[in-house]
Amino acid sequence: MEISELGEFGLIKRLTKDLEHKNTSTLKGVGDDCAVIAPEEGMQTVITTDMLMEGVHFDLTYMPLKHLGYKAVMVNLSDIYAMNAIPRQITVSIALGKRFQVEDIEELYNGMRLACDAHDVDIVGGDTTSSMTGLAISITAIGVAPKDAITYRNGARETDLICVSGNLGAAYMGLQLLEREKAVYRQMVRNAEDEARANGTNIEDAINAIPQPDFAGREYLLERQMRPEARKDIVQRLKEAGIKPTSMMDISDGLSSELLHICHESKCGCRIYEERIPIDYQTAVTAEEFNLNVSTCALNGGEDYELLFTVPLTANDIVSGIDDIKVIGYITQESLGKALITRDGQEFELKAQGWNPLKG
Amino acid sequence: MEISELGEFGLIKRLTKDLEHKNTSTLKGVGDDCAVIAPEEGMQTVITTDMLMEGVHFDLTYMPLKHLGYKAVMVNLSDIYAMNAIPRQITVSIALGKRFQVEDIEELYNGMRLACDAHDVDIVGGDTTSSMTGLAISITAIGVAPKDAITYRNGARETDLICVSGNLGAAYMGLQLLEREKAVYRQMVRNAEDEARANGTNIEDAINAIPQPDFAGREYLLERQMRPEARKDIVQRLKEAGIKPTSMMDISDGLSSELLHICHESKCGCRIYEERIPIDYQTAVTAEEFNLNVSTCALNGGEDYELLFTVPLTANDIVSGIDDIKVIGYITQESLGKALITRDGQEFELKAQGWNPLKG
Repeated sequence: MEISELGEFGLIKRLTKDLEHKNTSTLKGVGDDCAVIAPEEGMQTVITTDMLMEGVHFDLTYMPLKHLGYKAVMVNLSDIYAMNAIPRQITVSIALGKRFQVEDIEELYNGMRLACDAHDVDIVGGDTTSSMTGLAISITAIGVAPKDAITYRNGARETDLICVSGNLGAAYMGLQLLEREKAVYRQMVRNAEDEARANGTNIEDAINAIPQPDFAGREYLLERQMRPEARKDIVQRLKEAGIKPTSMMDISDGLSSELLHICHESKCGCRIYEERIPIDYQTAVTAEEFNLNVSTCALNGGEDYELLFTVPLTANDIVSGIDDIKVIGYITQESLGKALITRDGQEFELKAQGWNPLKG
Repeated sequence: MEISELGEFGLIKRLTKDLEHKNTSTLKGVGDDCAVIAPEEGMQTVITTDMLMEGVHFDLTYMPLKHLGYKAVMVNLSDIYAMNAIPRQITVSIALGKRFQVEDIEELYNGMRLACDAHDVDIVGGDTTSSMTGLAISITAIGVAPKDAITYRNGARETDLICVSGNLGAAYMGLQLLEREKAVYRQMVRNAEDEARANGTNIEDAINAIPQPDFAGREYLLERQMRPEARKDIVQRLKEAGIKPTSMMDISDGLSSELLHICHESKCGCRIYEERIPIDYQTAVTAEEFNLNVSTCALNGGEDYELLFTVPLTANDIVSGIDDIKVIGYITQESLGKALITRDGQEFELKAQGWNPLKG
């Protein structure tokens, strides 16, 4: 169905049908000039926003719209958890090119609703409009946390332990796989076209006969790239263990880049150990296949949406006992610099080579 | 300066330099995973978001970036006032095409800061990224109001008076003027090029010699289109007069469209009188020049960002005494329909022909 058949209000009505609010603080969702949110006793509000542009942040040739919707929400929720807070509401703005049908946008929206359901978040508003070109998505997420729980980037202190959740570099390797298969597929299309033309056979049939790429054994890497999961569980486990991180960030641009932010904001140095950086087996195997240094991928890859945080040295035993958290180094005084200690004991200055959407 | 020279973090640092917070509730602005906002005693939070896309919502051939920034903020603040609330914070996301320089974005941002300063609003966060094509702007605004003050669309009741602030149709006529001059200018450029080629003179000189369009006497219409002002003053005056509207919206898509929303949400009908719709002299003169029905422009033009609201009949004397508010009709029971009474006493059904960004 063409979007113009429904118009803006019709489309919004269709997308937001059956939206149920899971949070008692959501007093009014979609359907007025603003959403209305009730205060929660003793809580402060945290708010974050992210904009995703087609051709810059995502490639619809391999990213299904449902996954894109899911990911667009997750990257925002990840920022909320990175404050040690709990997400409650999001607003969603979408600008659509003319090539999209109502069903496409429903797919995108369904992915968003899935992500919201998994994290008990309400969609309370947004904007749906057209774009002269590609798809643009802008999401704002709102969360709450008790005043004393909120964790900033500037609280890391000398001797604090540097921790990361999960493993790193997998989302980056997933992207490399997808980009390689996209290039291979394009070449196969060109070959099929040439052959069909030479033989006088049907071009479309020839293209349809091209086999789908085989990602067997690499599913985890694709999932990390296409369906990241914000680490609510880590925030919960830390809370249950009675630990409040001294600083925290989510890893969207790459471990190096984020750790340098924490050092800068906390006015401190750091030492991290290459051998302690958590890396999945598939990431390592695939990096080797691509002739890439796996540690470089883990340090600079980005998009893993894991949590990077610091805890007091005294919490060592507790964090080491929490599943899926790894201590990778410690905070030093600022004058000692930011150091990466390689497997063979060499010391390098940590540099941010993370993804920069405005570079070059 | 090229944006790539600064990169994302450098650009954000430059744009947000010297940002001062005017609200005590703003605990943390730009610079962490989230902004942090303190609750205000007895207040609920309202939140709204709007996305503006180049080529759909604005045309940079006649819209200066500073005005665009100002307007992008105002349309969001207008939604906050339409809830009878006070804006406190905004987040700003910008996606930039490669043709933009650092100075361009500073202009845009300066316009945003001007709008925020005029309404005591803090810029607390956002996202700056690149776009494969045009400029995209997404703003989210957050405001507060006491629970009992918040005004929805669904509170209009039979016999309530329908009021509008300011005057209508001016922003639409401003747009018509700008579009006409753009077409004229394009023709003049083509003529100048042809002539220069024929005479063997410099084409650039010929284009530079084209006179600027003369908008003398029409400044008000251009200002209404390019520099709308959210009606904080109306919300304040109503409060001072002890009046809480029974329903309220801002007029962004056109009076007809918004009034039908109120009727739909409040399950009521309405009767409004053409002769009572406030229209500025310049709007009327220019509509005539364009051979347009001025009432149609006022009913469907949109982008005036005036407030449409209803008050109990008993408030008649008070609202009639407030400067810049006009009573244009009254609310009826639903079965009586939505009627427009023309100057010659004819009755028509009110239809929404307002701007729809997803139509056609």
